[in-house]
Amino acid sequence: MELFKELKPILDKDVALVTALVMLSWDKSTCAPEEAITNTTTVVGILSEEQFRNIINPKVKGLLEGLERKEEYKKLTETEQCIVKELRKVYDRIETIPPEEYKEYSELQAVAYGIWENAKEHKDFSEFAPCLKKLIEFQKKFANYRKKDNENTYDILLSDFEEGFTMEKLDSFFHIIKSEIVPLLRQIAAKKDLINKDYNSRHFDTQKQKEFSRWVAEYVGLDFKKAVMAESAHPFTTHLHNKDVRITNQYFDDNLESGIFSVIHEAGHAIYEMNVGDQLTQTLAGGGASLGIHESQSRFYENIIGKTREFWQPIYPKLQGIFQEQLKDISLGEFIQGINKVEPGFIRTEADELTYTLHVIIRYEIEKLFITGEVKVEDLPEIWNDKYKEYLGITPKNDAEGILQDVHWSMGEFGYFPTYAIGSAVAAQLYYHMLKVMPFKDYLLEGNIAAITKYLNENIHKYGKMKNTDQLLKDITGETLNPDYYIRYLKEKYTKIYQL
Amino acid sequence: MELFKELKPILDKDVALVTALVMLSWDKSTCAPEEAITNTTTVVGILSEEQFRNIINPKVKGLLEGLERKEEYKKLTETEQCIVKELRKVYDRIETIPPEEYKEYSELQAVAYGIWENAKEHKDFSEFAPCLKKLIEFQKKFANYRKKDNENTYDILLSDFEEGFTMEKLDSFFHIIKSEIVPLLRQIAAKKDLINKDYNSRHFDTQKQKEFSRWVAEYVGLDFKKAVMAESAHPFTTHLHNKDVRITNQYFDDNLESGIFSVIHEAGHAIYEMNVGDQLTQTLAGGGASLGIHESQSRFYENIIGKTREFWQPIYPKLQGIFQEQLKDISLGEFIQGINKVEPGFIRTEADELTYTLHVIIRYEIEKLFITGEVKVEDLPEIWNDKYKEYLGITPKNDAEGILQDVHWSMGEFGYFPTYAIGSAVAAQLYYHMLKVMPFKDYLLEGNIAAITKYLNENIHKYGKMKNTDQLLKDITGETLNPDYYIRYLKEKYTKIYQL
Repeated sequence: MELFKELKPILDKDVALVTALVMLSWDKSTCAPEEAITNTTTVVGILSEEQFRNIINPKVKGLLEGLERKEEYKKLTETEQCIVKELRKVYDRIETIPPEEYKEYSELQAVAYGIWENAKEHKDFSEFAPCLKKLIEFQKKFANYRKKDNENTYDILLSDFEEGFTMEKLDSFFHIIKSEIVPLLRQIAAKKDLINKDYNSRHFDTQKQKEFSRWVAEYVGLDFKKAVMAESAHPFTTHLHNKDVRITNQYFDDNLESGIFSVIHEAGHAIYEMNVGDQLTQTLAGGGASLGIHESQSRFYENIIGKTREFWQPIYPKLQGIFQEQLKDISLGEFIQGINKVEPGFIRTEADELTYTLHVIIRYEIEKLFITGEVKVEDLPEIWNDKYKEYLGITPKNDAEGILQDVHWSMGEFGYFPTYAIGSAVAAQLYYHMLKVMPFKDYLLEGNIAAITKYLNENIHKYGKMKNTDQLLKDITGETLNPDYYIRYLKEKYTKIYQL
Repeated sequence: MELFKELKPILDKDVALVTALVMLSWDKSTCAPEEAITNTTTVVGILSEEQFRNIINPKVKGLLEGLERKEEYKKLTETEQCIVKELRKVYDRIETIPPEEYKEYSELQAVAYGIWENAKEHKDFSEFAPCLKKLIEFQKKFANYRKKDNENTYDILLSDFEEGFTMEKLDSFFHIIKSEIVPLLRQIAAKKDLINKDYNSRHFDTQKQKEFSRWVAEYVGLDFKKAVMAESAHPFTTHLHNKDVRITNQYFDDNLESGIFSVIHEAGHAIYEMNVGDQLTQTLAGGGASLGIHESQSRFYENIIGKTREFWQPIYPKLQGIFQEQLKDISLGEFIQGINKVEPGFIRTEADELTYTLHVIIRYEIEKLFITGEVKVEDLPEIWNDKYKEYLGITPKNDAEGILQDVHWSMGEFGYFPTYAIGSAVAAQLYYHMLKVMPFKDYLLEGNIAAITKYLNENIHKYGKMKNTDQLLKDITGETLNPDYYIRYLKEKYTKIYQL
């Protein structure tokens, strides 16, 4: 008790500094003038360093070790125990790295995004390759500093993003999915002209899209007394605490779907953060349980709810009312077919539900290769393209469409991608469970999304980090992650849509 | 040199924390959801305490005293010397206060705004009076902690907002102004129907007003590569550094003038901050020289430039083009008369140029009374109303229109108001000087505001806090503040407008 009391103000200061950094980052993406960056980056650097020093020092280390001693640990409340565990994770991740190397890495990271961005613009991977090579080396080195016994390097990296999901587990998980999706995709490819969604690229006024986006975000449960919505180049969700969550969206006047499903996706993340318990928010036990669980919520709202006929039946007239000219000849049925059309493409973030996981699998397989060291960085573009050809039947025209697609690697994030697939599979598993425990489809038809959200609030959101992915799933559905539900979901869905 | 090197990272941390606090404050006024406040206030409290502790401690005190020793001080660059002086001011203001009292005061301050706001809503000063009494007691006590010899308490408070402007100086300054304005106002009152500005309350779409505001802000020199414009309940300017300045505006669909002159006013403040030298921004020597000088710039753009025929001649057609229906029957001449109409009212922030300073004088005279302790707080509403009757010829109907008008006292700011009048007088003094050194009116007619701004950049803005009010004025105009220019300006202006 005394030890935790001593730790408390240090953790509070950590929260305050992190909040300031989140605020500055949100502002950078949504508001700040373009020339602000250099001076503001100085401020971010100082606050980050302060945050590091506040947590990583002998005093905190001593307190942490003290609190981990059995007799001390068992005196803590469950929330405090969770906070101690989270602090341990932070420690293990950072404290093992020599400060000099950490600084060197931070400096590399600070420029890597720009290098990647330019390389992508020039469609030239060779500009980014040397930087990627260094990022990989650093991350491998850092992972190895905290290696225990026979642990695999990639497993260590994976655990930073999704605890407990090792390469062994993921290999089997992805193997099952791949072996089912690829043949399904071939069947659909043969009937690709069944669905016409040309209407989606008619001219849709972005101001009106913005109004509908705000409306639909509220419809699915975003409470604007605790939320803010803005625009940015890539939609994202962030939060200061559970009373201040923020989403952004992006609108294209020749793509109606993009803005609608992005906002429902981000609203899913935001509804999660907004419902984390009051006693957990602003502590290390706040925020989502894991990236996979977070993604399960965004994809649950976006796909499991948002792509169904039942969801749209009561609200499609609203959308038609806003875009009278553009949608007057498109029936609800045609719209539902349209938003579920399968189209293999190069852009993960714009992929349909069926091909989405293939994009993830390709990235996972490539990461595995370069982390375990079996390939040269220079060969990555070719490997990438070969896999796209094999799994999706298409070949990127250049590096921008290919190996330079996603931002993650430029941020040194290796092992992040699998969480997207885990999220989709979790969402499907939750779905089949919820079908059993509530009149799910009736709720959608009645516009009673609140009843569905309430279930997620009470079984997932409120726990913050108090339960991990497997615990949450087990407590709700009775079993840990099982990819069969996801396969079943995709098969049932697309068999119906494509009349297979 | 060594001492300053040691101080530098502490000052940099101060800047970083202040920037984070400015960011959170800006966000609170322009973006944050309504329920965020409690949790975010916790964060603000922690960061503020950290900022306090970072600066107010024996180590920094020792460094400061070391740097002030003659032999050390003369080794510093001019900028460093200015920073040391500014740090001394911070020290003198805060360090003398016992931490317990400072905490008690901070807690009072945290609730005072809400109490004032409610009292104003209820039009009932008695709700706010006990709180005001405490705020006055604290501020008097704090001022007395740093009293030297025969210093006057109110002088100490005044010096926090405008160095060098003592009661003695201000008494004589305001005496001259009052004795000239009050008779002038009586003359105008006799001709009050000469100007009809009914057009101003026609219906003006706020979206269009916003577009014009942005345009005119850019026209007068705001560079949106370094600036942001948003909306808030009361227009204000803030900044993170010279590459990130931010203004807000407020729009009323039945008041065209309000939005236009608010944005030009705030743009004036912003142009100042945007042009503070790169070596000064993000240091204690950055920001404006004083509140009076800052206000001189905003009022220079708003009034000296913005209320002239020469300014509007090239751009009035633009405004008419936007509001075709509303302004088609209003000639440039009628518009210029309208925006310069004198109308005594109760709201300082909406006052015309002539009555504005009377609002300030009333507040100054009342502050003097309650700081020097000659009145009871309970009697303030009556004193306020009597003065409005005497100077402006009107009597507030209730406390909201009267004693509860302005927010400043609820923030414990006693001695702030005079800076508004100093700003107006400085602006007039600069104006007569600039008429001599450049083709001022031609520049306005040509739309070459940049030439005028450049002069202000080079003679005021770039110096940050390196020169104070008197030094700036002396270096530019050859004399320190002289109210005669202001009197001359008002007389010339209103004699012409009202054909006196």
